[in-house]
Amino acid sequence: MIKAAPAKKIPPSNPLEDLAVRLAPDMKSVNALILERMVSEVPLIPQLAGYLIAAGGKRIRPLMTLASTRLFDEKTDRPFRLAAAVEFIHTATLLHDDVVDESDQRRGQASANALFGNQSSVLVGDFLFSKSFELMVEDGSIDVLGILSKASAIIAEGEVLQLSIQNALDTNINQYLQVIAAKTAALFAAACEIGPVITGQSPEIRQSLRDYGHHVGMAFQIADDVLDYQSSAAELGKSIGDDFKEGKMTAPVIYAIEAAKAVDDKEFWVRTFEQKDVTQDDLEHAQNLIRGSGADQKTLDLAQKHTQLARNALNCLPESDLKNTLLDLALFALNRKS
Amino acid sequence: MIKAAPAKKIPPSNPLEDLAVRLAPDMKSVNALILERMVSEVPLIPQLAGYLIAAGGKRIRPLMTLASTRLFDEKTDRPFRLAAAVEFIHTATLLHDDVVDESDQRRGQASANALFGNQSSVLVGDFLFSKSFELMVEDGSIDVLGILSKASAIIAEGEVLQLSIQNALDTNINQYLQVIAAKTAALFAAACEIGPVITGQSPEIRQSLRDYGHHVGMAFQIADDVLDYQSSAAELGKSIGDDFKEGKMTAPVIYAIEAAKAVDDKEFWVRTFEQKDVTQDDLEHAQNLIRGSGADQKTLDLAQKHTQLARNALNCLPESDLKNTLLDLALFALNRKS
Repeated sequence: MIKAAPAKKIPPSNPLEDLAVRLAPDMKSVNALILERMVSEVPLIPQLAGYLIAAGGKRIRPLMTLASTRLFDEKTDRPFRLAAAVEFIHTATLLHDDVVDESDQRRGQASANALFGNQSSVLVGDFLFSKSFELMVEDGSIDVLGILSKASAIIAEGEVLQLSIQNALDTNINQYLQVIAAKTAALFAAACEIGPVITGQSPEIRQSLRDYGHHVGMAFQIADDVLDYQSSAAELGKSIGDDFKEGKMTAPVIYAIEAAKAVDDKEFWVRTFEQKDVTQDDLEHAQNLIRGSGADQKTLDLAQKHTQLARNALNCLPESDLKNTLLDLALFALNRKS
Repeated sequence: MIKAAPAKKIPPSNPLEDLAVRLAPDMKSVNALILERMVSEVPLIPQLAGYLIAAGGKRIRPLMTLASTRLFDEKTDRPFRLAAAVEFIHTATLLHDDVVDESDQRRGQASANALFGNQSSVLVGDFLFSKSFELMVEDGSIDVLGILSKASAIIAEGEVLQLSIQNALDTNINQYLQVIAAKTAALFAAACEIGPVITGQSPEIRQSLRDYGHHVGMAFQIADDVLDYQSSAAELGKSIGDDFKEGKMTAPVIYAIEAAKAVDDKEFWVRTFEQKDVTQDDLEHAQNLIRGSGADQKTLDLAQKHTQLARNALNCLPESDLKNTLLDLALFALNRKS
């Protein structure tokens, strides 16, 4: 049985910001490396990469590499290159995702492919991906190279699987979980395993941090997939409805389809997902069906389970402020509103 | 001054086939690895990757990794994984290239993106790229990881540069050489450097084999760019005119534009390249201008220079049958007809 960490109220502040503040000096070094390694004689490369990297994003993955190192070693500069490598892999997958999804928006701004073209996005993604391996080679750990090359292959597999089941109404929750474990949680897990590896921790500690990263990644992605159908998120500035538009089979939809009893409701999902015949009011109707059937709550329960598993994974660590921030971060994955 | 190897007539047989026959047992192991590592639970991945890999291609890059090893060690199985890694990087770049070029044909068959969609081609390319690094990690040489991650970044940079100067009439021959050194010769050079690295040769020998690979890659690409305007190649089953259609600024066009004196000729290049206004008979007219101005011969002279430099690079090696085949291969790069 899973040993449950004590239940805890939602922390009042934003633990991701707490983490960023706590690790600000480290992150400064990582950001400097990121800028330095985007440089190329070909001007389009730093332009495009810089556009996406400057556009923000939470830098959660490199923060996890830094945090998973600082739990065990307060001084080493080894995580800097590797955190930059993790962010480059993430940025490369975002660039390629936007091409695959034909997105015109990313984080509320024009997506890189909309602005620079699909062709450049594919190639600059490849460039950043190669640069991430150059950074790992400089660090010199074959273990880390193994962790991140494996994670990268799994991410690509997950994306292909997601594409294969797009618009497929018979997708079940396990297929969904398989997709997000690969496309999202694999890099979170890898990012968190780097710290114990480069500081020479035991295989058990490695596995615990890996588990923590995996479950936080799962909770983040599941919560994100709920938010994509929540008007309250839209009010807070998050763009919603993308998954619906793209026919992505995410948990809220899978649960709502399972719960659909009325012929009209079943036909609605067939029309909007299978037949890709979507009209203006359909998103609102989908939101109503998801809320009305309790599919949103059922999805959040799933995220909650991963939050709890993430917290449990840290039981093996001694108490520390940083550990507490990581515990809070797992709750935040679940409770964020946008 | 360059020490010239003795001039030699075109060898009667095909040295690429000679090399394939000589290294057939090795190549069998490499092919087995390639098939084994394309496997995935997601069926689309082996389908798409298998389509492209089965479609043939000359396997010249993995053959070079094998040859550059066998020059120094007849027994080691270390080049197998690394030759497979080299082929995976090449296949990944082909998949992404076809997306970037919006190609519907590759090696006379429907291209993977035409058959499976751009989305799958991008993602399966990423998968193969990640798998290539997994193979290198299994081998465990940080040197080789460094060589191939650097080559990959250079390839992506070259492709972006090529995209930036597409349809740009003021492109000069040095920019063209910069593009092909990156997009083609970098992987040839890396493939040839692997052998001396894993068999522990001196830095001088490493550099010589690297130089050989670089110059063979340059000669192959330049000759390929001439063939793309040669009807005789079309008669032998090679598809021609792709570069013209895509507005690629290759050597034959750059030289023909430099040579253009008549207003009509200048206007032809402006219309077809800069204004992208191409009609049915334009390819033939372009061929005539290239032949008439001697631009094709001037381009072949450039290829000839690299063939000679490739041959000179092997001066440091003792005589052997394998060395002679590699010397012949450099000539073949220049003299092939399709």
